[in-house]
Amino acid sequence: MSDNRFGQLFSFTSFGESHGPAIGCVVDGVPPRLPLSAEAIQPYLDRRRPGQSRFVTQRREADQVEILSGVFDGMTTGTPIGLLIHNTDQRSRDYGEIARQFRPGHADYTYQAKYGIRDYRGGGRSSARETAMRVAAGAIADLTLKQALGPDYSITGSVVQLGPHKIDRSNFDPAQIDQNPFFCADAKAAEAWADWLDGVRKAGNSAGAVVEVVASGVPAGLGQPVYGKLDAELAAAMMGINAVKGVEIGSGFDLAARPGDEAGDEMRMGADGQPEFLSNHAGGVLGGISSGQPVVVRLAIKPTSSILTPRQSIDQDGKEVALQTKGRHDPCVGIRAVPVAEAMMACVLLDQLMRHRAQTQLLG
Amino acid sequence: MSDNRFGQLFSFTSFGESHGPAIGCVVDGVPPRLPLSAEAIQPYLDRRRPGQSRFVTQRREADQVEILSGVFDGMTTGTPIGLLIHNTDQRSRDYGEIARQFRPGHADYTYQAKYGIRDYRGGGRSSARETAMRVAAGAIADLTLKQALGPDYSITGSVVQLGPHKIDRSNFDPAQIDQNPFFCADAKAAEAWADWLDGVRKAGNSAGAVVEVVASGVPAGLGQPVYGKLDAELAAAMMGINAVKGVEIGSGFDLAARPGDEAGDEMRMGADGQPEFLSNHAGGVLGGISSGQPVVVRLAIKPTSSILTPRQSIDQDGKEVALQTKGRHDPCVGIRAVPVAEAMMACVLLDQLMRHRAQTQLLG
Amino acid sequence: MSDNRFGQLFSFTSFGESHGPAIGCVVDGVPPRLPLSAEAIQPYLDRRRPGQSRFVTQRREADQVEILSGVFDGMTTGTPIGLLIHNTDQRSRDYGEIARQFRPGHADYTYQAKYGIRDYRGGGRSSARETAMRVAAGAIADLTLKQALGPDYSITGSVVQLGPHKIDRSNFDPAQIDQNPFFCADAKAAEAWADWLDGVRKAGNSAGAVVEVVASGVPAGLGQPVYGKLDAELAAAMMGINAVKGVEIGSGFDLAARPGDEAGDEMRMGADGQPEFLSNHAGGVLGGISSGQPVVVRLAIKPTSSILTPRQSIDQDGKEVALQTKGRHDPCVGIRAVPVAEAMMACVLLDQLMRHRAQTQLLG
Amino acid sequence: MSDNRFGQLFSFTSFGESHGPAIGCVVDGVPPRLPLSAEAIQPYLDRRRPGQSRFVTQRREADQVEILSGVFDGMTTGTPIGLLIHNTDQRSRDYGEIARQFRPGHADYTYQAKYGIRDYRGGGRSSARETAMRVAAGAIADLTLKQALGPDYSITGSVVQLGPHKIDRSNFDPAQIDQNPFFCADAKAAEAWADWLDGVRKAGNSAGAVVEVVASGVPAGLGQPVYGKLDAELAAAMMGINAVKGVEIGSGFDLAARPGDEAGDEMRMGADGQPEFLSNHAGGVLGGISSGQPVVVRLAIKPTSSILTPRQSIDQDGKEVALQTKGRHDPCVGIRAVPVAEAMMACVLLDQLMRHRAQTQLLG
Repeated sequence: MSDNRFGQLFSFTSFGESHGPAIGCVVDGVPPRLPLSAEAIQPYLDRRRPGQSRFVTQRREADQVEILSGVFDGMTTGTPIGLLIHNTDQRSRDYGEIARQFRPGHADYTYQAKYGIRDYRGGGRSSARETAMRVAAGAIADLTLKQALGPDYSITGSVVQLGPHKIDRSNFDPAQIDQNPFFCADAKAAEAWADWLDGVRKAGNSAGAVVEVVASGVPAGLGQPVYGKLDAELAAAMMGINAVKGVEIGSGFDLAARPGDEAGDEMRMGADGQPEFLSNHAGGVLGGISSGQPVVVRLAIKPTSSILTPRQSIDQDGKEVALQTKGRHDPCVGIRAVPVAEAMMACVLLDQLMRHRAQTQLLG
Repeated sequence: MSDNRFGQLFSFTSFGESHGPAIGCVVDGVPPRLPLSAEAIQPYLDRRRPGQSRFVTQRREADQVEILSGVFDGMTTGTPIGLLIHNTDQRSRDYGEIARQFRPGHADYTYQAKYGIRDYRGGGRSSARETAMRVAAGAIADLTLKQALGPDYSITGSVVQLGPHKIDRSNFDPAQIDQNPFFCADAKAAEAWADWLDGVRKAGNSAGAVVEVVASGVPAGLGQPVYGKLDAELAAAMMGINAVKGVEIGSGFDLAARPGDEAGDEMRMGADGQPEFLSNHAGGVLGGISSGQPVVVRLAIKPTSSILTPRQSIDQDGKEVALQTKGRHDPCVGIRAVPVAEAMMACVLLDQLMRHRAQTQLLG
Repeated sequence: MSDNRFGQLFSFTSFGESHGPAIGCVVDGVPPRLPLSAEAIQPYLDRRRPGQSRFVTQRREADQVEILSGVFDGMTTGTPIGLLIHNTDQRSRDYGEIARQFRPGHADYTYQAKYGIRDYRGGGRSSARETAMRVAAGAIADLTLKQALGPDYSITGSVVQLGPHKIDRSNFDPAQIDQNPFFCADAKAAEAWADWLDGVRKAGNSAGAVVEVVASGVPAGLGQPVYGKLDAELAAAMMGINAVKGVEIGSGFDLAARPGDEAGDEMRMGADGQPEFLSNHAGGVLGGISSGQPVVVRLAIKPTSSILTPRQSIDQDGKEVALQTKGRHDPCVGIRAVPVAEAMMACVLLDQLMRHRAQTQLLG
Repeated sequence: MSDNRFGQLFSFTSFGESHGPAIGCVVDGVPPRLPLSAEAIQPYLDRRRPGQSRFVTQRREADQVEILSGVFDGMTTGTPIGLLIHNTDQRSRDYGEIARQFRPGHADYTYQAKYGIRDYRGGGRSSARETAMRVAAGAIADLTLKQALGPDYSITGSVVQLGPHKIDRSNFDPAQIDQNPFFCADAKAAEAWADWLDGVRKAGNSAGAVVEVVASGVPAGLGQPVYGKLDAELAAAMMGINAVKGVEIGSGFDLAARPGDEAGDEMRMGADGQPEFLSNHAGGVLGGISSGQPVVVRLAIKPTSSILTPRQSIDQDGKEVALQTKGRHDPCVGIRAVPVAEAMMACVLLDQLMRHRAQTQLLG
């Protein structure tokens, strides 16, 4: 109900604006006695950090996270974990007219319409800067899941489409994901994308993307039917990431076009005596509950709205203006959405795991 | 947190299985002094009711809703509204082997894996029968919104794709939606679909669909950033409907492929002195907040999993079986998803409207 | 947030008015595979049922509970349990002026002020009739706790003060509680109370009471500091029961007057090698977390507001009136509050137990 | 559900330990365009600050609050407000044996039993230091209510009993409350208390207290029956404050002993044409809803558990020890509970006001 909180048993509540003194969050419900330190969280934030290639914003933020509470002698205590990141690159400048203008594709107009006031500096609360806290909270979720579920568990995100260009699935190699600036598992596609996105960037334009996140080693049984379904909560988690306009599970929209005899995943007994599915159109979720197969989610991210090309708009007085965004921006925000989407996956899975066990393991 | 509850300020909590004595729900938070009766809710249920054409299940359910509380002298009192629908067509029969078999594409396996027990009769709690309560609760939401927002407000759902066959947007006529068995706004497409779906049905197969729901007359400002965004809650609401595998807002997945200079909706001042958007790729939501434009959501529904064609599976003992579904089933569950999706849209909008006003109108 | 819902992981959502067709609730989060039937719930309701002695209301209600969902083959399935009790003794009558008058000590005025409408028949939603659903939900909680915690666990409520007359603690014998119409553990006090309350009743007056509820066999560790403390949730649960005006834990208000060296319960190692407290002023709760000692709560219940003695009041038009309550009423509502308070204790404990285990047992 | 969050529409989520680097909270749901600054919050914190008289702990904390977000150009923006207070007086010292010993009356044992780990420095999360964040959040609630409800609204807390010594109600003068170190409205009692408490302190002992909080100018209608009642939420809010063991509303426990014809507050039309109550035994709450009368709550606070007198206990190994608390402690924690209880009252009232209006004013 608190609308800046995410999650039920494992939850985090975030605060902070793009150009305020700091952003932060409170992570609640973390199991006690988990080894934790700022150093353990930092690598997750570093993956998302701006300024690492020419394809992401040149804003320079160290994004050094501080743990203010909830950890003692290197272990979580079960009390809430306060996290803080100071904003270091808040270029002081005169916002001038932009302070009163509504940038197309941005939340300027809707925040103003909703609240009658807005922090216009860098988008304020609507800035993707807030996603750093999702990544930090997601890091704690991921570390908890690793310990709870063991080595079979992992979450892997990657960009599977940049603008209109999809990867070739036959080239998919997870080992490639961290070898290029696109979190792309298809090395060849990544090369082609670099050239193409350079062109887009130089033309003062921007590109969208499709991100895929796969969680493996997720036990069957997670999901609370019928209004806390695993897929419903994943959909909310992903759709709530900045610039996301679509979410699909498993074969997603493609399933609408398929006949029934191709859609339902058939089952057999595996060599290990465990039930086994012959396909995964369901994306690991049946009836809102995980099936034990990999959980597969894809999200569509719209192209960055801040572009050099002038766009028509109005200002708060209703005066018509032409808007051209200067300054530092990602030509494709979809790239940096990868670690954010992974984080949201981890948060949803941990919360669901805790809710699942609370109900089903009480009576043994 | 109660996982059979949907919504925050306006909420409903549902119960009931496909073949139990009744299904029902408790609708809470309804504003007082709204004229309400079972007769006002019934037409919404009748649109969803089975048995109305050869393209939906032949199960015969009157789906007569009873109001047990919360209404006095024809008006809501502000106290919770108990709703009940008796199940009348629970054909008593021997379930035999099906009681222990996992139907592909169904939730049989995951319910068993989660709870270690399941009501196998007609899918139990995972049956689409539960959606009747969503429609009943949605009816109350819709009637409330009508009174709160006035005549500009409306919610219209339709099937825009059946199997691989999309409508022709140039034929889109809302007046057609109730003139064919598909809730289809393109009369010509509906005709073609009838032939095509007959073929699918006779072949013992099934089809998926894409449903689109448009809410007009929604004021700007609805949505609670950043973890109660309007689009995030719509995504959860729609993804949680049975058989839905994908959700998109506005131009959705298509936006991933577009350049930035086509994606952000430009603004101008309208003839009426109100801000006006020149396009609606955003689907009426910017930064998680409604913009005043129509709110547009599309959902992908997988083909009905229950088909006559035999499918491989296993039973609870791990024995391999071939499963063939007999009995009454919708050849395309996507059709009856239309009133359900409309209902979920109404529930989300009313809840968001109440939350929006609670915060922003307190200090005038 | 749904304000007719109680609890987080184990929750129930109730509906229904005193003189409507039925009251009911949805119990959610119940662990699967708990043996359950209407017959197992009924004895709890029978303890609360009106009409059993001359000291409680003569309204005749069978209070037969029906299970509508969530139980299959005699076991819970983990899905929501719909419970229904039909109102059988809704004497049809002309409410006349009472429909517009505000009875002193009742919620008539506040419901009207809040909602601008109210179901005046028998107090509508504010009637103690609603507590039947708390008892039904509490029965399920108690049966679950019995199975989860074993034979050491029990909840025992009793009246320890009737009007100004307290029991003699040296006579306290739990075996006496069900041997008199007062749920009183002091047989001698119960005798004296019978005479005294007869006098009160004949004088057209009413009496208050203090109820004590003790939960034994509660493991240490339950309670979620700092805003989900065990004692805070017990306080809300008990204060929310009709007519309750005070709640205390352990030595409660008496502790305010004691010196520190008498208040903190000292500890020693017990003969069984387990930590042991030398007193229980804390009432089994330290820092909001159960200590393993018996959890002790007392609640003060005001005298029944409906009395034969005429009282000054006004009606909806502001006209001054003299009000005298006719009809069937408990001379002391505190008596029937005993099974209700026991039920609320069970609901809080089970919910807290589930939340506790969810967080602390995830990592073993 | 997030157990370090308080409130629904107006909420705050706190974090921090007694001896960590900082404590803080996120205040969510604040209406936009409320003038706000750290300077406006600080006076509330200063009232609670330690070290201001010989009757409270000599720990020196500046308790300077910083606003990290949610305020722009001196006004709230409707986005979450991050608040931070650095701990400045964390005396570094060797905790030695105390690190493993369970202090009687403290939460040491229960935190250890629950989490298997605890931050033993100064009580960690269970320290009353956390209440600073309640006061900060309460300040924002109070400032909002002042603007929403106007000059009739006020919240006034005071100590009405110190140890066994009650105030004389005929001397009650609110103007005296800030004129003595006890927040006592009876100047004469305050004088006597000073002498008495000096004696207690010098004897190495401690004292309990009863605090009363009165909210005036609260409109009729606040409270969400039946599980979000105003009195139930006040009970939870107050019982959750450190060391509180009892809560009562209006005449509270005294009502249990009174006859019905004295308990129900009679009504008349006032000179101003408004309904008027002839007494306030109900403490401003009927049926869980505010009546427009002053809301009156009293809380019993146990004596400070940390005393110089040695007490028996055990340590984590089960070894029996004698514990004597050195260091800085309040001889009566009840005194500094006054601003905390006022803060919790403000938080509950604002949250209820927002929930009330959300439901009841939607349809005008």
